[in-house]
Amino acid sequence: MSYRIDPQFIAEQNARAHQQLQSDYEALAGVLSRRGCDIEALTGQAQAFAVALPSWGVGTGGTRFARFPGQGEPRNVFDKIDDCGTIHQLTRVTPGVSLHFPWDRTTDARALREAATQHGLHFDAVNSNTFQDAAGQAHSYKFGSLTALDPEVRAQAVAHNIDCIELGHALGSKGLTVWIGDGANFPGQSNLRGALERYLESMRAIYAALPADWLVYIEHKLFEPAFYATTIADWGTSFACATELGPKAKCLVDLGHHAPNTNIEMIVARLAQFGKLGGFHFNDSKYGDDDLDSGSINPFQLFLVFNELRDAAQRDGQAFRPAYMLDQSHNVTDPIESLMTSAVEVQRAYLQAALVDTQALSHHQKNNDALMAAQTLKQAFRTDVSAILAMARYRSGGAIDPVALYRASAYRDHKREERPVVAGRSSSGIV
Amino acid sequence: MSYRIDPQFIAEQNARAHQQLQSDYEALAGVLSRRGCDIEALTGQAQAFAVALPSWGVGTGGTRFARFPGQGEPRNVFDKIDDCGTIHQLTRVTPGVSLHFPWDRTTDARALREAATQHGLHFDAVNSNTFQDAAGQAHSYKFGSLTALDPEVRAQAVAHNIDCIELGHALGSKGLTVWIGDGANFPGQSNLRGALERYLESMRAIYAALPADWLVYIEHKLFEPAFYATTIADWGTSFACATELGPKAKCLVDLGHHAPNTNIEMIVARLAQFGKLGGFHFNDSKYGDDDLDSGSINPFQLFLVFNELRDAAQRDGQAFRPAYMLDQSHNVTDPIESLMTSAVEVQRAYLQAALVDTQALSHHQKNNDALMAAQTLKQAFRTDVSAILAMARYRSGGAIDPVALYRASAYRDHKREERPVVAGRSSSGIV
Amino acid sequence: MSYRIDPQFIAEQNARAHQQLQSDYEALAGVLSRRGCDIEALTGQAQAFAVALPSWGVGTGGTRFARFPGQGEPRNVFDKIDDCGTIHQLTRVTPGVSLHFPWDRTTDARALREAATQHGLHFDAVNSNTFQDAAGQAHSYKFGSLTALDPEVRAQAVAHNIDCIELGHALGSKGLTVWIGDGANFPGQSNLRGALERYLESMRAIYAALPADWLVYIEHKLFEPAFYATTIADWGTSFACATELGPKAKCLVDLGHHAPNTNIEMIVARLAQFGKLGGFHFNDSKYGDDDLDSGSINPFQLFLVFNELRDAAQRDGQAFRPAYMLDQSHNVTDPIESLMTSAVEVQRAYLQAALVDTQALSHHQKNNDALMAAQTLKQAFRTDVSAILAMARYRSGGAIDPVALYRASAYRDHKREERPVVAGRSSSGIV
Amino acid sequence: MSYRIDPQFIAEQNARAHQQLQSDYEALAGVLSRRGCDIEALTGQAQAFAVALPSWGVGTGGTRFARFPGQGEPRNVFDKIDDCGTIHQLTRVTPGVSLHFPWDRTTDARALREAATQHGLHFDAVNSNTFQDAAGQAHSYKFGSLTALDPEVRAQAVAHNIDCIELGHALGSKGLTVWIGDGANFPGQSNLRGALERYLESMRAIYAALPADWLVYIEHKLFEPAFYATTIADWGTSFACATELGPKAKCLVDLGHHAPNTNIEMIVARLAQFGKLGGFHFNDSKYGDDDLDSGSINPFQLFLVFNELRDAAQRDGQAFRPAYMLDQSHNVTDPIESLMTSAVEVQRAYLQAALVDTQALSHHQKNNDALMAAQTLKQAFRTDVSAILAMARYRSGGAIDPVALYRASAYRDHKREERPVVAGRSSSGIV
Repeated sequence: MSYRIDPQFIAEQNARAHQQLQSDYEALAGVLSRRGCDIEALTGQAQAFAVALPSWGVGTGGTRFARFPGQGEPRNVFDKIDDCGTIHQLTRVTPGVSLHFPWDRTTDARALREAATQHGLHFDAVNSNTFQDAAGQAHSYKFGSLTALDPEVRAQAVAHNIDCIELGHALGSKGLTVWIGDGANFPGQSNLRGALERYLESMRAIYAALPADWLVYIEHKLFEPAFYATTIADWGTSFACATELGPKAKCLVDLGHHAPNTNIEMIVARLAQFGKLGGFHFNDSKYGDDDLDSGSINPFQLFLVFNELRDAAQRDGQAFRPAYMLDQSHNVTDPIESLMTSAVEVQRAYLQAALVDTQALSHHQKNNDALMAAQTLKQAFRTDVSAILAMARYRSGGAIDPVALYRASAYRDHKREERPVVAGRSSSGIV
Repeated sequence: MSYRIDPQFIAEQNARAHQQLQSDYEALAGVLSRRGCDIEALTGQAQAFAVALPSWGVGTGGTRFARFPGQGEPRNVFDKIDDCGTIHQLTRVTPGVSLHFPWDRTTDARALREAATQHGLHFDAVNSNTFQDAAGQAHSYKFGSLTALDPEVRAQAVAHNIDCIELGHALGSKGLTVWIGDGANFPGQSNLRGALERYLESMRAIYAALPADWLVYIEHKLFEPAFYATTIADWGTSFACATELGPKAKCLVDLGHHAPNTNIEMIVARLAQFGKLGGFHFNDSKYGDDDLDSGSINPFQLFLVFNELRDAAQRDGQAFRPAYMLDQSHNVTDPIESLMTSAVEVQRAYLQAALVDTQALSHHQKNNDALMAAQTLKQAFRTDVSAILAMARYRSGGAIDPVALYRASAYRDHKREERPVVAGRSSSGIV
Repeated sequence: MSYRIDPQFIAEQNARAHQQLQSDYEALAGVLSRRGCDIEALTGQAQAFAVALPSWGVGTGGTRFARFPGQGEPRNVFDKIDDCGTIHQLTRVTPGVSLHFPWDRTTDARALREAATQHGLHFDAVNSNTFQDAAGQAHSYKFGSLTALDPEVRAQAVAHNIDCIELGHALGSKGLTVWIGDGANFPGQSNLRGALERYLESMRAIYAALPADWLVYIEHKLFEPAFYATTIADWGTSFACATELGPKAKCLVDLGHHAPNTNIEMIVARLAQFGKLGGFHFNDSKYGDDDLDSGSINPFQLFLVFNELRDAAQRDGQAFRPAYMLDQSHNVTDPIESLMTSAVEVQRAYLQAALVDTQALSHHQKNNDALMAAQTLKQAFRTDVSAILAMARYRSGGAIDPVALYRASAYRDHKREERPVVAGRSSSGIV
Repeated sequence: MSYRIDPQFIAEQNARAHQQLQSDYEALAGVLSRRGCDIEALTGQAQAFAVALPSWGVGTGGTRFARFPGQGEPRNVFDKIDDCGTIHQLTRVTPGVSLHFPWDRTTDARALREAATQHGLHFDAVNSNTFQDAAGQAHSYKFGSLTALDPEVRAQAVAHNIDCIELGHALGSKGLTVWIGDGANFPGQSNLRGALERYLESMRAIYAALPADWLVYIEHKLFEPAFYATTIADWGTSFACATELGPKAKCLVDLGHHAPNTNIEMIVARLAQFGKLGGFHFNDSKYGDDDLDSGSINPFQLFLVFNELRDAAQRDGQAFRPAYMLDQSHNVTDPIESLMTSAVEVQRAYLQAALVDTQALSHHQKNNDALMAAQTLKQAFRTDVSAILAMARYRSGGAIDPVALYRASAYRDHKREERPVVAGRSSSGIV
């Protein structure tokens, strides 16, 4: 039997922390009330928020130089579901899991769905993988997949994506995220325009296979693995392609996939305005696609992204429902701890954005009062909503302090014993 | 009477340089012939190439810290036409002049057109200016122009653009370039989406005023003067807006207006593919919108841009006619010398791209032979076509060595006398 | 008589805001006390903190494209001192003023010193200006100042710096900040090594003129106004030069003067470690040297810089005394409001860094517990210390809400009348 | 027996290409002679130039996402020496090989040295590897190596470096290159200053073990594998450490290890000026440490680097002897082809820099004639010296067209048979 944290243990741990939380919560309630904000409404909003987990994120990540594995890493998709379940058990904010095929391929979709359900999890968008060669694959993706010049390679890549849709369909997913590494390392290697023409042709075939209630998310990325020209390099290309494909095609924004100095929140605003914002891969970065924990490097940027999402929701109402997922690489931390912390950071940014005094903001904007408009955002961002987030978890049955509780539970030690290392084998996704 | 370089003087100077040019030309003819290329066809292509001059470029530029004026700077648009005429006289590659209003406003369009014609010049796209407050202007653009919240400011900015169209129409122009500095310096200062909505509204009014055979060019820029969010910041926004506006709206690419590490030639390929590549502002940069001389920092990038233009021309034929203009700031050089040299550098890149062995390139691409494909481009780029460019000028009546001839003519000394400095007055455009 | 805000008015305004402040302060006191922190000690630290004002910052700034002047701008150094005095009066955190020569040159140093004293101000480091040509200057700095090839230009620039030292000495300053724009716009324009040799030669002459208790601060900057190569472009060059010059030469870090993606707090740590950290020009930026308000774009980075300063202070004790100055360009805000807000943001970052649980941090670092170490910093950063900062101001006689009070006082309206605009004249520094 | 290309085959292939080369060479000789340059002297300089090969470069590289192996990859250091020998046989410009331990560890140094000698190769600087965990290693480098907080980890890393010195000594090397991946992924994870203190302590122990005629090269890198703070991140840190360590410590510049927009040739000039330029890892990049083929992305930058090296050699004479090595990752090309092409590109940049008219350059610089100074460099860069490089190879016994000859030889096909793939095993270095 796989070890799970006992709800009783959670209750006991919470009991010790509850007193201080209650005091902090009341103190914050007072501060907010003096500003005209109702803490209870905010706590409710926090409880309703959700961000999906990446199945590949529960294994230790690495760089091209090395991967330093952790202890008790998941060996297969069922182990991954267990870890995701634990994250959701403690944070109550991650009910969705995003799978990656063929990494997470299973022959028993029913069993997998059941395993998820037992943890209170469902399956979010599925991801295809044509940036690696799977064992036994007929054609190599060395020179591209959906854009390859060889029609057999393209056909294989298209078929894999359609296969992903079917797998996802069986699991209850409603979307397919397509990220390809296709591109060129050298000027001249590829005809830039020809590559995108082939991409569109391939994507049309995939698009045609989407169930009626599905979306396909196009994920752009500036560079890596291609180092001169990436076919889907920026939001402009993603947007143009999503427009060509039709209403079920949307753009997915990964916070680490942009050129230095890019104003990402403005890209969010643009995609929302033109009806093509599909969702997010949340993480943080300082240099490139560093895949660091969300909010760890530039928390204000994360807040500003959510400020745009708040604005879009206010304008577009229920029609605006972007998919939120984490996508991180945990190279030096326990992946479960990083994912719990990151999910809370995303929730924090959402809540801080909810705190923005939109009437005041609008008033200052109308007066060209740049200083007060900026300070209106800063005031929301500066508010330490930790007590609200903890109370939301507490009320939803999660842990007041997820990391402390997780450590106290010795979950990882249990998994180290349950999941013995098989030499030379890693199912932890991207290295 | 305004001093002009005597054609006789050009003939004399060329006579001295012709012998060596002929030898170099023949040597290159041999090299090219051994590669299967006909130098005469290339020389003809070089003679047919043209790139427009920016009227504001003939004055000394500067930075926000200082402007160090040169000698004999033009005092008005007629002086500028004289300088542009001289550049064209010597290079034979710059028959078009791009004006900037209100800087170049004149009450006598006929006289201006006549002055241009005497130099063999015509008027290329005109530029509106709503990033500065002109003397006597009713409303300030401090907080935006086409995107301003104040409808009177927007109306003024729209009216100015329509005025530019009328001025340009009287001068024989066929296009309007719209670059605005609108944006925000602080998060919160502006509602990002609202600003673009107002932009589109303003642009629709301008678009409606375009004569049937005109195009409007939308020029994007990442930052400066806005330092947090620029409304038209990237090609994605430019493309989305041009699409919204209609077929007469196109995107203009300035090589210095992108985020660090951006692959600009791919943007060129994308805009060409989607039918929205309107034209270029050529210059070079290492950091931001440095407005340095074309080809001075990264000549291979300029070549790669022209390689995409070559590909687009090959695919789309006569329909593909982007507008080429220089847009530089000459802070430490004589502007006339920089513009002559830069025009030749752009022509050089065009010619090197014409040298690409497209059959071999296509063959290597089909074989995924990245190394040979890259070397096919490099071979074209490595070819020193200086002798062809000089011969093209010589045959077209220009100078074999434009800078040397210009210096020998003492043109600048004449202008220093003709154009006495009026204290505190500068009509040289951007400082 | 120049208008000043009446202390009585401050008292009245504070009286209205005090009740809410007291409640917020007590709420925060509780939160901090539950974490083991004493709010009173922190308030004392906040009261003891100081950051100097740039005299040039009280005028409206601009870009190379335009400057949109504000109302009632200071006309001379005495007006600037009045504005700086008002900022200090309300914030109690800006007792120093950093002058810029020749902009702030006066023939009556005694009067200037007296004016400052009346406002409770003293003079911080003085700044030389050899990036512009002053009226009537014998030689131009168009091609460099301290690095110019022409020995007469260099001599003039050296003499100006020595003059600045003398002016500063008469005013009670203890330091000279040297920032030069010298560099090249084109490869080849300047011999890179020769330029630095001449710089060192010039700086040795300036260094020799320093009084015994003075420091000279070398300020590096990546680009602008030079767009290809800046002679003092990075901290490595600054450090090497400061080492060559001797113990009175230190390095000054301006937060906006680095390449994209640079980890600035690590530069701070390096300079501190090697004994060469002289001080700061605080501001914020997203793209280049944007000179935005401190903490407006990336407040976490500002905190991390102060976290390194805290670490250095802990290690080096009283010996570690870097100079803190603001250096911003206020293009769209009232400069007084921006400077007040920015001074408080810098003070905030200092105080948040003081909140870091250094024992816990050290413990987590020793255990390679990256997650908890990161969260230890984040907890300090997340703490909303606004109530402490307001209480510190209140107790020191300043304003609980400086911007609101300033607006209520109609200070700017008074100045608009006192300082009529003289056509074509601006003494507000950098445009 | 391992297949080698028959010298007779080279002679035959050259015989076919010689006629055209001779014609191109003579044409170029004429062009250069008209400029006052002697082609024979240049050919001699080209023949004397050398750049070392990285042993790890002859295997196919990859990214963190995937590695797509090629055919006939080397299985061990002896195979690598064979491939390096072939590269040198055809290019005559790569007599040195740089080894990487423990990848290239052998128990029979004598046999390895002999194998190299048979190919006319010698061993250049050796490289230590503490960024990966080797099989059976006592302590993990997950949390650092030379900077680790655990003294046993540091001791292990120091011992490995000293072991590298001994291995290198036995092979005739004269230098050790130390690149570490140490750093932090999160703010707070590591005390930035403490890490560098430990680095210096570790390096002092390594420095003490250097033989009298050895140098140690410190290689900095901005990011990857560390994504927040890299201990040796920039040339400033490298320089400060090399200064602390002593005269045998020098700085090594890898062209891909800098922040975006960095002027690398200026770093070269600075390190040369302060006596700390140790050598280079040549490659090219557009985004990060892309490790692309030298000169493939920005050939003008490579030329400008060599222009600084030319300047340093002119100033410092024989004392200036930096080590030149290639360091590339060949993900989509045949590594042998890429290394041959890249070695020639580096040689090309060297030769173009030798073509700079230094007298004219100096003259224009003295006159602040930025335009002509820039054109002086451009003229040298524009010169197509391909014929000189080919003639230099021909005269030295190499191939006129190395890639064509290599393909014609079917070398790779031979190796595919000689080197059968062992499942799951790769000795090709960095993935």
